[in-house]
Amino acid sequence: MPNSSERAIRFYNLIPDAEKLIADIRAKTPGKLPVERLPTGETNAENVQARLDFLAEKNIRFEHLTGQNQLTDIESLHGNIENYIGMAQVPVGVIGPLHIIGGAARGDFFVPLATSEGALVASYDRGARASRMAGGITSICLIEGVQRSPIFKFHDIAELGTFISWVLMQRDLMPGIIAEHSRFARLEDVKSTIEGNQLILTFEYTTGDASGQNMVTLCTDAICQYLIANSPVKPAHWFIESNYSGDKKATALSFSNVRGKKVAAEVHLPREIVTQILRTTPEMMAEYWQASTIGVIQSGAIGAQGHVANGLCALFIATGQDAACVAEAAVGITRMQVTTDGGLYVSVTLPNLIVGTVGGGTGLPTQRECLEMMDCFGAGKARKFAEICAAVALAGEISIAAALSAGHFSMAHKKFGRKK
Amino acid sequence: MPNSSERAIRFYNLIPDAEKLIADIRAKTPGKLPVERLPTGETNAENVQARLDFLAEKNIRFEHLTGQNQLTDIESLHGNIENYIGMAQVPVGVIGPLHIIGGAARGDFFVPLATSEGALVASYDRGARASRMAGGITSICLIEGVQRSPIFKFHDIAELGTFISWVLMQRDLMPGIIAEHSRFARLEDVKSTIEGNQLILTFEYTTGDASGQNMVTLCTDAICQYLIANSPVKPAHWFIESNYSGDKKATALSFSNVRGKKVAAEVHLPREIVTQILRTTPEMMAEYWQASTIGVIQSGAIGAQGHVANGLCALFIATGQDAACVAEAAVGITRMQVTTDGGLYVSVTLPNLIVGTVGGGTGLPTQRECLEMMDCFGAGKARKFAEICAAVALAGEISIAAALSAGHFSMAHKKFGRKK
Amino acid sequence: MPNSSERAIRFYNLIPDAEKLIADIRAKTPGKLPVERLPTGETNAENVQARLDFLAEKNIRFEHLTGQNQLTDIESLHGNIENYIGMAQVPVGVIGPLHIIGGAARGDFFVPLATSEGALVASYDRGARASRMAGGITSICLIEGVQRSPIFKFHDIAELGTFISWVLMQRDLMPGIIAEHSRFARLEDVKSTIEGNQLILTFEYTTGDASGQNMVTLCTDAICQYLIANSPVKPAHWFIESNYSGDKKATALSFSNVRGKKVAAEVHLPREIVTQILRTTPEMMAEYWQASTIGVIQSGAIGAQGHVANGLCALFIATGQDAACVAEAAVGITRMQVTTDGGLYVSVTLPNLIVGTVGGGTGLPTQRECLEMMDCFGAGKARKFAEICAAVALAGEISIAAALSAGHFSMAHKKFGRKK
Amino acid sequence: MPNSSERAIRFYNLIPDAEKLIADIRAKTPGKLPVERLPTGETNAENVQARLDFLAEKNIRFEHLTGQNQLTDIESLHGNIENYIGMAQVPVGVIGPLHIIGGAARGDFFVPLATSEGALVASYDRGARASRMAGGITSICLIEGVQRSPIFKFHDIAELGTFISWVLMQRDLMPGIIAEHSRFARLEDVKSTIEGNQLILTFEYTTGDASGQNMVTLCTDAICQYLIANSPVKPAHWFIESNYSGDKKATALSFSNVRGKKVAAEVHLPREIVTQILRTTPEMMAEYWQASTIGVIQSGAIGAQGHVANGLCALFIATGQDAACVAEAAVGITRMQVTTDGGLYVSVTLPNLIVGTVGGGTGLPTQRECLEMMDCFGAGKARKFAEICAAVALAGEISIAAALSAGHFSMAHKKFGRKK
Repeated sequence: MPNSSERAIRFYNLIPDAEKLIADIRAKTPGKLPVERLPTGETNAENVQARLDFLAEKNIRFEHLTGQNQLTDIESLHGNIENYIGMAQVPVGVIGPLHIIGGAARGDFFVPLATSEGALVASYDRGARASRMAGGITSICLIEGVQRSPIFKFHDIAELGTFISWVLMQRDLMPGIIAEHSRFARLEDVKSTIEGNQLILTFEYTTGDASGQNMVTLCTDAICQYLIANSPVKPAHWFIESNYSGDKKATALSFSNVRGKKVAAEVHLPREIVTQILRTTPEMMAEYWQASTIGVIQSGAIGAQGHVANGLCALFIATGQDAACVAEAAVGITRMQVTTDGGLYVSVTLPNLIVGTVGGGTGLPTQRECLEMMDCFGAGKARKFAEICAAVALAGEISIAAALSAGHFSMAHKKFGRKK
Repeated sequence: MPNSSERAIRFYNLIPDAEKLIADIRAKTPGKLPVERLPTGETNAENVQARLDFLAEKNIRFEHLTGQNQLTDIESLHGNIENYIGMAQVPVGVIGPLHIIGGAARGDFFVPLATSEGALVASYDRGARASRMAGGITSICLIEGVQRSPIFKFHDIAELGTFISWVLMQRDLMPGIIAEHSRFARLEDVKSTIEGNQLILTFEYTTGDASGQNMVTLCTDAICQYLIANSPVKPAHWFIESNYSGDKKATALSFSNVRGKKVAAEVHLPREIVTQILRTTPEMMAEYWQASTIGVIQSGAIGAQGHVANGLCALFIATGQDAACVAEAAVGITRMQVTTDGGLYVSVTLPNLIVGTVGGGTGLPTQRECLEMMDCFGAGKARKFAEICAAVALAGEISIAAALSAGHFSMAHKKFGRKK
Repeated sequence: MPNSSERAIRFYNLIPDAEKLIADIRAKTPGKLPVERLPTGETNAENVQARLDFLAEKNIRFEHLTGQNQLTDIESLHGNIENYIGMAQVPVGVIGPLHIIGGAARGDFFVPLATSEGALVASYDRGARASRMAGGITSICLIEGVQRSPIFKFHDIAELGTFISWVLMQRDLMPGIIAEHSRFARLEDVKSTIEGNQLILTFEYTTGDASGQNMVTLCTDAICQYLIANSPVKPAHWFIESNYSGDKKATALSFSNVRGKKVAAEVHLPREIVTQILRTTPEMMAEYWQASTIGVIQSGAIGAQGHVANGLCALFIATGQDAACVAEAAVGITRMQVTTDGGLYVSVTLPNLIVGTVGGGTGLPTQRECLEMMDCFGAGKARKFAEICAAVALAGEISIAAALSAGHFSMAHKKFGRKK
Repeated sequence: MPNSSERAIRFYNLIPDAEKLIADIRAKTPGKLPVERLPTGETNAENVQARLDFLAEKNIRFEHLTGQNQLTDIESLHGNIENYIGMAQVPVGVIGPLHIIGGAARGDFFVPLATSEGALVASYDRGARASRMAGGITSICLIEGVQRSPIFKFHDIAELGTFISWVLMQRDLMPGIIAEHSRFARLEDVKSTIEGNQLILTFEYTTGDASGQNMVTLCTDAICQYLIANSPVKPAHWFIESNYSGDKKATALSFSNVRGKKVAAEVHLPREIVTQILRTTPEMMAEYWQASTIGVIQSGAIGAQGHVANGLCALFIATGQDAACVAEAAVGITRMQVTTDGGLYVSVTLPNLIVGTVGGGTGLPTQRECLEMMDCFGAGKARKFAEICAAVALAGEISIAAALSAGHFSMAHKKFGRKK
């Protein structure tokens, strides 16, 4: 069971070959990546085909997303939906290539975004282009962990104390209990939070490549059943979740902890890219960052970022993630600062990326195609996918801050929005 | 321009016939609504057809959701997407009938939820059933307003003071400027927030039946352009959004204000319904509410609710809302208390429902069908739809609290989850 | 009853002669104020006398603070204490002159700080000196208001709606009720916050020169008694305070509202003052500001400031304010930015200054002397005192950020701290 | 270095004889403690003398608090104040006996509160009386730790990663560095928080019986100096405090961590005590608790309590604590629930009690007398004092909730407040 410092060192343990990563980051050179751009242009059949052809050359192919093939095996939907009546269809646009030099994600990625909000895809695509011209985005998964936080209520603090002392002696038995319920769940930590005669135990797991919320529920339930059955002192009652874990909600807890995966992404934008591609200046973007950070603090928000929810939600819908987790995943910190050489440093840190590449909706037809587009379907891909998520968020933050700092925000919505 | 108290009185102004509403609420009787249930059962082709037939009898019909008809006019997607390549398909399950006695929403509603999370639809459906047996949910849109919050930075506070004094004298000109840019936007209030030499002006609008974020951006931009051009004192710089408006993020601001629509929904569950349908007791549900409220406070969350994000996100995806707004819409307060007659009072109050029934993704094929299913497509339906949103959230809160208080939460996920 | 915009314009209404204020701010010149410094040096009897002599020349004299005179009329303490046994003695140090060009506070102020924390007074004094050399601090009381927020619970939302509609029609009667209970309280606004079947009414008052918490309790109680007695619909129960007003606690509400007085203070520090007096650079102070703002956001704090609590608490204890209100008063925003001429802009905005110059502990012997030292005792002085509070906070923020950015923080504590 | 679970088990390690504590808690019987009451009554010389005589019988004597003896050795104030000019005098009232059955605090305590707010002492005394009649308050210090959180900024995340990996290998050297700077500081944990290219290292210490903020600054500075001098990779810059530690501000971080001491206090009030002494009912107090918890959540506060700041601030001023720490210490959770036997359970949990019984202002004349009154002066008393702090807070929460639930709040302020 790792202590806090050992958890910190996972920074490196999560990265198979840290020396190589650092060398690659050091070798990153603005302007050296081949200029290769997805066909854009008006929304019409011709341009759609041009994009599909372009992607096909890169061995990215679709059957379901394009409507050529439809799901017929309705029974395969068991586990994803009840009272099923049909399929909601959400338009998917693609951005990229997004160039990432990360711990698990390396190279060029075309990223699918499912949304009906005009200007969103164009905006994220612009951020992807600027960051690519800067040599790419560094995006690193720092730590992972998914929690379940049962609560136990006792007659008084004395009983609670007796219980927790006994529970902590059961720590070594827990992995065995977990093994009976999941091949992937691994208990990383058990933390306690005491409030009067109520005890919250936070069980933190890694969950392989699944987002893992169900897995940790089942395992924690099994542990609790054991604890309740065997403890010398019984709680008056207990509940499997105390609403403390941050499931489906923004919490301040996340910065000092993690929920899902914590990823930090950064890019150094040379001055020319800011002025020529983003048509503003590093100084104005930094000034906007300052103003918007003070603005968001005064709104009583958690963290400080611009519109991370937009990109993540669109990517989550496209890839079969639990889109409701945007409530927590959209918490983060965006930072923009002028560098000593007159460029702009931009980072986005997201502590709550509950994502997976197996289970949930990842195996549904179009969702699977969208994951495969980024080579992110199946086992061994979750960290890679999380690093792409943060890089996408970074691209979006660059683009909106550029538009807002240059006074183009309103204009972009006029151009790409619906004619009312 | 209404003052705070006049805004409060909109509680009633929003409701065309308040006397009738109150009479209907008083007449609500547990157990008196006809027992009519959507066919449920295993996820297979036969049961899907049974549900479609059942809905067809109620004049609810689908072409696109069921895949019989596909979108061919790609150009019609302009304004919703860029770099389009195809359609993500998300399974839709239906819950209901959800019985609502509201300000704008009255009667029985079948509600479409687009999700890939097993157990979600079944859980919300159970809450809908329990609340229907209790006589239905009261759900009332209390107030509306969408904001844009530009920020103006001056050399010093003295310049800022000169500016704001002048701006407030321009108040009467603003409606004229707005009228040039939108037929629907109506300026309700202009608020100022001063921090050092930085001024945030919050322009609050009603936006007809559109969610309105683009509309308020264009109108606010036009007002600001006028202000900057004509003010006797110029800011060093200004930005159209200070990140103070709460766009795409959870903020504490929302309880004392509104973002989109603020809706309160409530139900009184008779004791028998809690014990027989939800298979727990009012006391245990109230105890769970207490424990989870204290739990969520300790997590540093905003508001206190369970999994409102789940139902809203699924409903938003199905109906072409901006699903990224779940980041803010999922903020709310759930409350459960044992009543003097041994039943359970449950309420959900959501201050941030950014929803619309025109514009955005509402006119896309499956999204339109899903809105029409609830008679919520087009002009004059936004408040009605917002009241349905809150009622859905309430159904979900009842169901999860019941499951958690009874120890069934883990079991439900075993039954409805994917076999891994 | 003012609406939101009219309240904003109070920015200027609070300032008797705004033109003159702006002219004075414009005329402010770094380095032009006479160099006049309070004798500092070791803590010994000789230096204490030197300081007392120096202050006496400015007609600032003490009898009680210096212990020459002691309170003998114990009955005069009625209303300030129960179960009285004696006087706690807290050391008072003085800083200044702090030069302020404000709406109500103008000129040089020597400020008393009661504390036992070594280095605190020295640190604030350094900030006062730097800001004086920069020409002084602009500090402006922007808005005032004290709230009481009773809560009313009804059987259901329909009854709540009937009640609130009726209450708002009683608005004109309220001033008459208030007049029977207080000569100073003036009702400025009545706001409503609805959550399910619970209604919070926030009564916002100005309270003359008293901090006013008791005054608003009595007035609100009288209004509520009237409402309950006469309303056509009765609440199940009601409480005079819902814990929503922010009394004695930090809340996010304060930035969009006010509690007590909202004051913004600012100073432009020329580069030379930062380098020579504060021995760091504007760039390092701005960098520290950025780092500490991101740091405090990650801690889940409200607002973003350094150690405002230190100066305010010491000033509150010295002057007979309600020191427990530091819990709310210490919420604020500090901002530091490099200016285009290479200097540093610093501002502190405090939205929650619950202070008074009459009532409470202001008339106690040493407390009165400390208020008189700043010509802040009695009627007509509360806004002036609030502006001094914010200027003191600003001085402290400058000093600590300078020390931290220069790496002197630890050293200062070695020099001024206790030898353990 | 303890991991999270081992830290949890400190719950019991902090208590020398847990079995005995539990036995004593079990033996607690309502109504069995001897009725012994401090003389109360009007504020006059006679009653003051009666109280002093009463306390003298219990060997509690004062020289400085009563003004018979005055500080003459001004040089002894070095380390507590600069620019000293005299002593602020704050009235002290006494409450009690407060009966505590705690981990370190056991028995009857008379507690000094320094305040000028009428009704405060009377209110806390009423809570003390009710809890004593209930058999006393259980108050247990659960965990301790004081933090310093330096921040290190690097060119990029890769450099940051190299640094942190190296730092964690230096962990074993740190105790040696600390030992050179403090006999009392003990490093308990080192945690890392990464945001983009910025690293916060949180060094958590126990600090003996001192509140410890200076101690941890000096030790952390020494460790950082070593790290910077020896690290193979250097930060662009670093600061000794990132504003993440929660020093002098309310943060959400505290519930999942600790700042100073985390103490939970509880009492079971029999129904008769609530009805006869507090003149309300358990049901109304629980109802008030519910309403005020929802109220405070809507205000965007951290935690949920009533007026903890009042009692703590008064106790801090009396005993030479750093009263500015009320900003953080007043964060907590109060809970009130009707018990199965018709009584009321009340708990207060305070995670941020930065208190000490050596150093700071604890040795000043009146402050020392106030600590000695509770046998809390000097080494080995800090945990005991922290448990008294939480018990005082609990007494205050009981009293205010009783007054508010019974409609007596306004009346109490009329009786004890100043006649204006």
